[in-house]
Amino acid sequence: MEQRITLVTLGVTDLPRARRFYEALGWRGQEVEETVFFQAGGLALVLWSRDKLAADCGLEPEPPARFGGIVLAHNVRSDAEVDDLLEAVQRAGGTITKPAGRNAVGFYSSAFTDPDGHAWEVACNPGFPLAEDGSLVLPDFGRGS
Amino acid sequence: MEQRITLVTLGVTDLPRARRFYEALGWRGQEVEETVFFQAGGLALVLWSRDKLAADCGLEPEPPARFGGIVLAHNVRSDAEVDDLLEAVQRAGGTITKPAGRNAVGFYSSAFTDPDGHAWEVACNPGFPLAEDGSLVLPDFGRGS
Repeated sequence: MEQRITLVTLGVTDLPRARRFYEALGWRGQEVEETVFFQAGGLALVLWSRDKLAADCGLEPEPPARFGGIVLAHNVRSDAEVDDLLEAVQRAGGTITKPAGRNAVGFYSSAFTDPDGHAWEVACNPGFPLAEDGSLVLPDFGRGS
Repeated sequence: MEQRITLVTLGVTDLPRARRFYEALGWRGQEVEETVFFQAGGLALVLWSRDKLAADCGLEPEPPARFGGIVLAHNVRSDAEVDDLLEAVQRAGGTITKPAGRNAVGFYSSAFTDPDGHAWEVACNPGFPLAEDGSLVLPDFGRGS
């Protein structure tokens, strides 16, 4: 298995609402057959019916939990960008679940959920510098493996 | 908000078990402070304590559901690669939740869950050709937006 992810699909209960939320944050996508595809670096973030997504994986479409067990992170290059993004999230109808502040490791971060409860962390982590195109190349932590 | 994801963090209840699973599939990561980081194209797939992950987002650490609402997809270049990966998943202790077959759209796909129940789709979708480095550039669906 090559070490990569091709799609991250978020199950949503109201596709137009979910699309409006991400578009209010500046994302631009394409909608095909009640599915919205956003190019996101070398993969795509996808919005699709939560029930259809579960069925497509052979799983029961359980109602959303308050914590789904997966968190997406969006790292930025300055603390001010964290604050700016949180303001945009609030305007767009997201829920700030952790106010911005220095976390235990010492970098500035915050977290929000989208209208379907999917969790995002927003962080400026100088230990994880971003390439010019926004991609992340993990540092060598020097622990062997 | 730039249109990208920096990290995809999977909340896990048994870190060594989760790490062994992904390593049995061929992934190689670095462990730092009870967190495992795998480079995955321009982002990182991260394994971290489910409870700590929830707390870090200001959310209640609910017990895992059978469907968490997010699915990761790993696309490959041939139907045979789908079958090969599924065999590796079974050997590694994953659960095949959808047997491989042609889906409604006509391409060959399957789905599995990892030991913590996180869902992955495995697919060979000729409509989404992969670049040489495995990254996905969405086609223009020609629907305007």
